[in-house]
Amino acid sequence: MKKKLWVLAVGAHPDDIEICCAGTLARYAQDGHRVFISIICRGNAGTLDKSVQEIVKIRAEEAQEAANIIGAELIMLNFGDAELFYTKEALEVFIDLVRQVKPHVIITHPPEEENVHNDHLLTRRLIMDASLWATHHNLGMELKYPPVGITPSLFYFDQYMSGFNIHPTHYVDITSTFEIKKKALSQHRSQLSFLGKLYGPNFLEYVEVMARLRGYQCGVKYAEGFRELAVYPRVRPYRVLP
Amino acid sequence: MKKKLWVLAVGAHPDDIEICCAGTLARYAQDGHRVFISIICRGNAGTLDKSVQEIVKIRAEEAQEAANIIGAELIMLNFGDAELFYTKEALEVFIDLVRQVKPHVIITHPPEEENVHNDHLLTRRLIMDASLWATHHNLGMELKYPPVGITPSLFYFDQYMSGFNIHPTHYVDITSTFEIKKKALSQHRSQLSFLGKLYGPNFLEYVEVMARLRGYQCGVKYAEGFRELAVYPRVRPYRVLP
Amino acid sequence: MKKKLWVLAVGAHPDDIEICCAGTLARYAQDGHRVFISIICRGNAGTLDKSVQEIVKIRAEEAQEAANIIGAELIMLNFGDAELFYTKEALEVFIDLVRQVKPHVIITHPPEEENVHNDHLLTRRLIMDASLWATHHNLGMELKYPPVGITPSLFYFDQYMSGFNIHPTHYVDITSTFEIKKKALSQHRSQLSFLGKLYGPNFLEYVEVMARLRGYQCGVKYAEGFRELAVYPRVRPYRVLP
Amino acid sequence: MKKKLWVLAVGAHPDDIEICCAGTLARYAQDGHRVFISIICRGNAGTLDKSVQEIVKIRAEEAQEAANIIGAELIMLNFGDAELFYTKEALEVFIDLVRQVKPHVIITHPPEEENVHNDHLLTRRLIMDASLWATHHNLGMELKYPPVGITPSLFYFDQYMSGFNIHPTHYVDITSTFEIKKKALSQHRSQLSFLGKLYGPNFLEYVEVMARLRGYQCGVKYAEGFRELAVYPRVRPYRVLP
Amino acid sequence: MKKKLWVLAVGAHPDDIEICCAGTLARYAQDGHRVFISIICRGNAGTLDKSVQEIVKIRAEEAQEAANIIGAELIMLNFGDAELFYTKEALEVFIDLVRQVKPHVIITHPPEEENVHNDHLLTRRLIMDASLWATHHNLGMELKYPPVGITPSLFYFDQYMSGFNIHPTHYVDITSTFEIKKKALSQHRSQLSFLGKLYGPNFLEYVEVMARLRGYQCGVKYAEGFRELAVYPRVRPYRVLP
Amino acid sequence: MKKKLWVLAVGAHPDDIEICCAGTLARYAQDGHRVFISIICRGNAGTLDKSVQEIVKIRAEEAQEAANIIGAELIMLNFGDAELFYTKEALEVFIDLVRQVKPHVIITHPPEEENVHNDHLLTRRLIMDASLWATHHNLGMELKYPPVGITPSLFYFDQYMSGFNIHPTHYVDITSTFEIKKKALSQHRSQLSFLGKLYGPNFLEYVEVMARLRGYQCGVKYAEGFRELAVYPRVRPYRVLP
Repeated sequence: MKKKLWVLAVGAHPDDIEICCAGTLARYAQDGHRVFISIICRGNAGTLDKSVQEIVKIRAEEAQEAANIIGAELIMLNFGDAELFYTKEALEVFIDLVRQVKPHVIITHPPEEENVHNDHLLTRRLIMDASLWATHHNLGMELKYPPVGITPSLFYFDQYMSGFNIHPTHYVDITSTFEIKKKALSQHRSQLSFLGKLYGPNFLEYVEVMARLRGYQCGVKYAEGFRELAVYPRVRPYRVLP
Repeated sequence: MKKKLWVLAVGAHPDDIEICCAGTLARYAQDGHRVFISIICRGNAGTLDKSVQEIVKIRAEEAQEAANIIGAELIMLNFGDAELFYTKEALEVFIDLVRQVKPHVIITHPPEEENVHNDHLLTRRLIMDASLWATHHNLGMELKYPPVGITPSLFYFDQYMSGFNIHPTHYVDITSTFEIKKKALSQHRSQLSFLGKLYGPNFLEYVEVMARLRGYQCGVKYAEGFRELAVYPRVRPYRVLP
Repeated sequence: MKKKLWVLAVGAHPDDIEICCAGTLARYAQDGHRVFISIICRGNAGTLDKSVQEIVKIRAEEAQEAANIIGAELIMLNFGDAELFYTKEALEVFIDLVRQVKPHVIITHPPEEENVHNDHLLTRRLIMDASLWATHHNLGMELKYPPVGITPSLFYFDQYMSGFNIHPTHYVDITSTFEIKKKALSQHRSQLSFLGKLYGPNFLEYVEVMARLRGYQCGVKYAEGFRELAVYPRVRPYRVLP
Repeated sequence: MKKKLWVLAVGAHPDDIEICCAGTLARYAQDGHRVFISIICRGNAGTLDKSVQEIVKIRAEEAQEAANIIGAELIMLNFGDAELFYTKEALEVFIDLVRQVKPHVIITHPPEEENVHNDHLLTRRLIMDASLWATHHNLGMELKYPPVGITPSLFYFDQYMSGFNIHPTHYVDITSTFEIKKKALSQHRSQLSFLGKLYGPNFLEYVEVMARLRGYQCGVKYAEGFRELAVYPRVRPYRVLP
Repeated sequence: MKKKLWVLAVGAHPDDIEICCAGTLARYAQDGHRVFISIICRGNAGTLDKSVQEIVKIRAEEAQEAANIIGAELIMLNFGDAELFYTKEALEVFIDLVRQVKPHVIITHPPEEENVHNDHLLTRRLIMDASLWATHHNLGMELKYPPVGITPSLFYFDQYMSGFNIHPTHYVDITSTFEIKKKALSQHRSQLSFLGKLYGPNFLEYVEVMARLRGYQCGVKYAEGFRELAVYPRVRPYRVLP
Repeated sequence: MKKKLWVLAVGAHPDDIEICCAGTLARYAQDGHRVFISIICRGNAGTLDKSVQEIVKIRAEEAQEAANIIGAELIMLNFGDAELFYTKEALEVFIDLVRQVKPHVIITHPPEEENVHNDHLLTRRLIMDASLWATHHNLGMELKYPPVGITPSLFYFDQYMSGFNIHPTHYVDITSTFEIKKKALSQHRSQLSFLGKLYGPNFLEYVEVMARLRGYQCGVKYAEGFRELAVYPRVRPYRVLP
């Protein structure tokens, strides 16, 4: 891939991107591609003791620090946690996101109906649909940006603990960027503590385990796994992943 | 399982629970666990000749009698048939249901996209999502109950006639409670007559057929089948079914 | 099948029906069955340079000419492109569509979660649910037509390019009606030009390729493939396809 | 289907055909088609107390009586139970079986890798392959019969208890022949007793349960389910089942 | 489970059992059940520089030490690596293995057609079939042991790296036995070195990664995953795993 | 991919490779990689009127001409049609094939259990297993070549008409080599005539249809589709297809 790509990673909450595909994004960035991270929900429910205002501010700062480490530009949308629904208004926001970024490649949550979170599933569904409609004229919607010319490729990242039947068909070697991934995830201090209390796992250890496992599968130390949205006109007969 | 469990069965309409998992609920009740049945829609469309007011009253009474026979506490929500949608208001109602009951185990409709009823599918989707969010603070919602501390295990009951590709991975022997199941289902007099006229099958005979089939498969006279929602932090490395 | 059938094909946009099942509809019509084509969205986004008013008028005329060639009655609903959502209002429109036509057989988009278009997926979901509820009384909805007596069989047409994991289980020989199919599709002049510019494929050539492929698979020159919605009380122990 | 069909049902052991598809075979026979039942293994292991010689004689007689009731011609092959392997010699026997009968339709065990019996799986695999090769000349094999001109359609019968993930896509109404099915199965006196002792189920009751279940699914009293082998040049764009 | 169970783990080569299910076997042993490990192939190909005689002797000793640590009785069969085929002779050996041990539960390789090794697949296939036939009389085979009375439950262990689409439906908490698992695996000194040279992964680290991952999924520190063979008369409506 | 790859395409009969992956092989050859085509069966059954000796000679010549056009080296094994079985002798032949060629990449038939031909399935199974064992020492086999150092990546080509549920995850643009593909296939004069008589399809037209379809899916004029064998140590975190 000589061509410079615009890559848009879309995660439901701050930290999803770091857990699932930060190693790959860092490789894109190192290769000179332009990387955007869009976070859909502001993460207000990710706390046991802080106010909405406090936690939202904290998480936005953490997300920005993480994006900086990855080498990505951050775009925070502002949906409330658990308040994303499949409505015209939401679709408008997602279409404008695509039109603003004009990505060649989108990376987002996997589509399996069973996932820990509806925010994950709806993020995937909305960005998939929005990235199709973003090319169309004449939509009966309130949109800020004009149509774009390309329907991007779309890859699902690996969210194996959140849906045990997910399996990648494409691997990216992140041995050279795994430290960046961990450092980026480490910025989400509020969540590493919160998730540990709520669910148990230490996510810094978890990403080590997953990256090692995917690495074993494809013969490198650390890897991330992906699967492609297989509908026309998305698929390309060459590799667009790093 | 020495520990007493709170078990919440969630069915779209009056009679779904009796058809699909009443034998298992009766076993939970007999073992001293606390069993709740929540019915989401009030069953107004389950008639060919009665008024909404009449049929809703009849079905609530039938559901209460059935719950009594099973040994369960009944919680009637009040959605209209075919009027359940994936909205913030519906999600709030479901989150409060989970927070009110605080279940360790939820049993509900299977997730396969092809099911006889959208009410079935949306009931599953809403209770799955609500039982995740019920543990979270700071939601931007109108909620009556405070967050709970546990994300419950979730099992899908066997609704084989309503989706022919469904298959259980766990079986419960209901030989000792099959009569209770039939008696509970028999309370739904209005439906046994209505469904026979609309669709043909006699559901008292149907549950006999299904329970015998699942019994053949696992080596007992009567059984019910289930499948587990396989996402963290739901799964347990021990059996929570009877 | 001696009995005359009412057959309802439901497509999201003008041209979906022609691309996917016009050969089969023409066979139904030639065999003396009554064929309806319902188009859900008015196709306003199917242009690069025309106004909404212009393109909607053009596409309605094209759709009517195509229906005439197939031998079908056209029912245009009037949703905007990308403006179909799973709401009570939409469900009402679909229930009334079913009650108006009273079909024995419905043919529509396939259910796979990955499809080029959300309009496709929602059309399928709404017509599936509506055709169940159309038989019910007492719905808390604004409906123009009274309940119907039969829950129709429902078949998914073959939309292979829009979801690469779709595979038919039933084939219809359209060798005798393939020219009708092409002629009907040719009426959608505005789309053949628009789609070629947007996505590349010439859809007249594409339908030739797909019909040949399905033909090879079942031993005839041209064929269309289908899959049945497998829930009771839909399935019949005899063939309802031509 | 005006044309008279030659139909070949192939079961691993005496009683498999009666349990799984006798109702359909009886319908073929009543419609004037010619029906053959071929049993691959002689059933020597189907006893707890008889000698090989005794049980083999008994089962051949039972199979003949059952075939007579169905209206089918019986062809007993003579493999030992658990002694069917995928060898050249076995393939020769199966090719000659196909060439002898010249069937338009074959009905046999389903292909799922998990089935109670390897004899079931190998019977399926051998008859599938043999019915392809039966049309070929020049095979380096010891064959008694000359090549045939047609590669038959092939349907898998429903063996749901022997592989819980099997699901039919085609149904046959056997309400009119269910008594024939039960009477034919009743001839296998030695097995009904043996299987009850070994495994528990009473197979006369089991077939009632399965036929009722498949009947509920397709809207009749009793039915049998099938699935088609989906490879060219097998599939037909019309129904070859009754 | 008050009853003492006989548990038979069947692995193709020395070290498969330790990698995949030693934690569970150790839990069975600690709970007072009787545990057998049967190794099918003698491991002659597991070296880069030793003679067949040397490596076979070394691996038998390593396997014995590992079995001792787990608390299991070792049964070495003596097939050559890559020399296991589906023949009558092999089936006889496997039937006699089952008849000798008389297990209530068998644990073995998963059935997915894509696995790193045919020895894995054939071991699974042979032990599945043998454990059905072991109950039968009158087999035309050279068998040393008389028929047994029970068809055992059969579980597939988790061999995720060897087939990326495998997913467990049952989990066993091995936090208390994980050190035993690692110590048992450590006995296979010849393989840890050999596999590292041939393929890269350090298997002591790999089992840590897999056990952590399965632990995250079910909420404990270390776990092993399993899936049940779903055919009658195998399945039980209660848990037979620890 | 700067590195020169050794690519081994393995087809059951002369013409399989040309039908399924010749466009991709020609691209490998044009890019300077070394391409081998191995044909397992000598094609003796591919005739209606010629003697074994005649047809075998003809097909070997046709295969050689086709390989020349593709730019590949041809290795004819000499199994009889329908005479490939999973035996030690066959496995030895396949291991030696791998050791002789030392491929980095193998391309062969897909693994789906339902395929038109057992020769296809066994070819896949044997080459998959052989390419694992080829790296091992000490095998108790008669082998001509010493062990190799690498376990190759393995891709399944697209054989969609021979198994309707196959779907590619990787595409190769063969627009630039499609004429080579057709010309190579055209050398199989004996088969184009024979297959037309036996089955109907004209395979020159069929490959046009399939290549167009796969082209539509990935946005080019002509393409071929592939899927990867997903077991370690096969998978690579970069593209090895052209």
